[in-house]
Amino acid sequence: MSKYIVVLGTMDTKGEEMAYMKERIEKAGHNGFLIDVAPLGSSLYTPDVPNTEVARIAGYKLSELIQSESREKIMQTMGMGASRVLLNMFKEGNIQGVISLGGNQGTAIASLAMQALPFGFPKYLVSTVASGNIRPYVGYRDIGMVFSVADFLGGLNPVTRSILANAVAAVIGMVERGEGISLEKGQKTAAITALGNTQKAVSRAIEKLKEHGFQVIGFHASGAGGSAMEELIEEGFISGVLDLTPHELAEEVVGEGAYVPVRSGRITAAGKAGIPQVICMGALEYLCFGPRESIPERMRNRKIYMHNPFNANVKITKEEMKEIGTVMAERLNEAKGPAAILVPEKGWSIYGAEDGPLYDPGGNRALVDALRERLKEKVKIEFVDANINEPLFVDRAVEIFIKLSTRA
Amino acid sequence: MSKYIVVLGTMDTKGEEMAYMKERIEKAGHNGFLIDVAPLGSSLYTPDVPNTEVARIAGYKLSELIQSESREKIMQTMGMGASRVLLNMFKEGNIQGVISLGGNQGTAIASLAMQALPFGFPKYLVSTVASGNIRPYVGYRDIGMVFSVADFLGGLNPVTRSILANAVAAVIGMVERGEGISLEKGQKTAAITALGNTQKAVSRAIEKLKEHGFQVIGFHASGAGGSAMEELIEEGFISGVLDLTPHELAEEVVGEGAYVPVRSGRITAAGKAGIPQVICMGALEYLCFGPRESIPERMRNRKIYMHNPFNANVKITKEEMKEIGTVMAERLNEAKGPAAILVPEKGWSIYGAEDGPLYDPGGNRALVDALRERLKEKVKIEFVDANINEPLFVDRAVEIFIKLSTRA
Repeated sequence: MSKYIVVLGTMDTKGEEMAYMKERIEKAGHNGFLIDVAPLGSSLYTPDVPNTEVARIAGYKLSELIQSESREKIMQTMGMGASRVLLNMFKEGNIQGVISLGGNQGTAIASLAMQALPFGFPKYLVSTVASGNIRPYVGYRDIGMVFSVADFLGGLNPVTRSILANAVAAVIGMVERGEGISLEKGQKTAAITALGNTQKAVSRAIEKLKEHGFQVIGFHASGAGGSAMEELIEEGFISGVLDLTPHELAEEVVGEGAYVPVRSGRITAAGKAGIPQVICMGALEYLCFGPRESIPERMRNRKIYMHNPFNANVKITKEEMKEIGTVMAERLNEAKGPAAILVPEKGWSIYGAEDGPLYDPGGNRALVDALRERLKEKVKIEFVDANINEPLFVDRAVEIFIKLSTRA
Repeated sequence: MSKYIVVLGTMDTKGEEMAYMKERIEKAGHNGFLIDVAPLGSSLYTPDVPNTEVARIAGYKLSELIQSESREKIMQTMGMGASRVLLNMFKEGNIQGVISLGGNQGTAIASLAMQALPFGFPKYLVSTVASGNIRPYVGYRDIGMVFSVADFLGGLNPVTRSILANAVAAVIGMVERGEGISLEKGQKTAAITALGNTQKAVSRAIEKLKEHGFQVIGFHASGAGGSAMEELIEEGFISGVLDLTPHELAEEVVGEGAYVPVRSGRITAAGKAGIPQVICMGALEYLCFGPRESIPERMRNRKIYMHNPFNANVKITKEEMKEIGTVMAERLNEAKGPAAILVPEKGWSIYGAEDGPLYDPGGNRALVDALRERLKEKVKIEFVDANINEPLFVDRAVEIFIKLSTRA
């Protein structure tokens, strides 16, 4: 059955490439659909949705937008408009895949638009900036990105013709044979959060949860991982969170690190959704950075542990630990579902253990005291005399999680 | 006709995922082929190429490798071995696509392996680290990358099942309907280098070159772009280089900036291949950085121009300019083909023009003097009394390029 695949881009400069992509989609028996997100200029090719319509759906008249607003605001508006166009098409069942191409600006607009579509929906982006930091574009989404190798300058050339042909073929492949996220019926789905530093605990917990009939989805506490988890909670895919490694909350509160959540508001989604959550303090005692040069100057006199030459762990101060505890309490107090905190008294990670390089009982105590002061009675806090990675701790965490989940 | 698609990964921890991917490839009527690159551990699933063989082809006995070498060296060796396995399969026509999945380590090994395969060959990588800086993995290659959303922990789950199904479908799509790079017969192919700051010159040059019967491939001087150009020169796709924006040479020589070439040795490939090249000095007077914080401390007292809040241009000192000129002369002196330098006397970019924020006639002169002192007679240097973006300059550059190309 033939499908609808959207080709999205700035048609003033990339009209020829977009027309070529549409042509290849149609040769494969599907329907290509052109959305023009160029704020300026016109194209030799006719779009299915013109840029004026994209601006209009974002609440602007295009001519006024480009006259009165900053370049950044214009881009955001076109991205927002395009995301609404895509979402409307999706809701009406009129789109099965989306592909885009762009330079700096086009990539920003296209990725913003694509973020409106659900996980598992086929999305692909050919970009001149896809050899570098793509987090600003991808965030926590499954947007495939490929480096364009050559620039989109002066129309199609032998290199871009090949890269674009492959990209179009990839989307067609996904549309024809891909799959969205589907849950097995009758099975409960637990989310769990991990870092290398808590991996041993996570592995044991996953095994135990499976024994209890859960299917388990692990998320790397990398800023993108926790954010993806929270999005999936919102979308209804998760029945409970064993938050073994809420590390990203620390980076969010301190405001620095490589793993600041893409979506702010860590540990709020489960509370809003009313599903059970057990918070286990994993890796809340340090911040993650890249190589030594990437550590902000103001933090260079702290305890620093180089996990390897490319990854530095920087200790969080007592004052900051207190602040993290405060924010954690505030957020968990708002939870509509059951929430519990389980504190491993002998350290919250490998490095934070008694013999670890980031051991700091005073800091941990500061966080816990701040928590205790503010936590409402409905959120239970419990202590286990073990390190987070010890079976004693893990088993108790799973036990509490199962108890909350059964009650829920 | 059924094709061969390689699934590459560390089977000790990702065997279940890899077996699932192979199964989906075979359901679509193709042949899945498992390569195990795990330095340690064993899998429940049997690979087609075991890790011992991957190590062996890289010149190591696996058991000795893991005992005697560092983690980094082990990873590099497994990546190198896998790249040789892929390349051998490619040469024998036994592989039409490759897909991989990985965390930090698996992504490093897989991307190293995939880099052996030519541009336009279907390659896709599902990674837990594909929301961040992917340049270390992708380099200047067309390796599609997608964020795994969830971690590969404890086997398949509803999220990874969907993300992997889509990725497999994407590679199948590329294998069935993609296209490699193909040149139109009898047409000469010019490469040209660009930055926003020289774009006007580049656009005019492309037009002129097309009038002269060239097909033109533009490369963004972003570190990855120039490196991709040089790789394509080596592979025989390019008949001449109008190097309007050799900017990356400056970053390579100074050793800092966001656009240091991925492959070092900028402006050497054309010389080695014996194809004509015209070097036009574009944007050699500044370095590119990200936001202001990303500028190294030692450079913060220089002339800095914020192109926008996310992009800083930092002036290169006179001493460094001299060094760039010296390196340029040394490299061009080695050229086997015709080479010429054309200097725009009124500035090498928009920002470097007389009324621009990075105007520095003394610096430019230092570079040019160093060049003149060292250049062998066979490399002509010529001056045009115009800014690089003026038609007067561009037309002369094209004229010289055509002359060298016709003679060649």
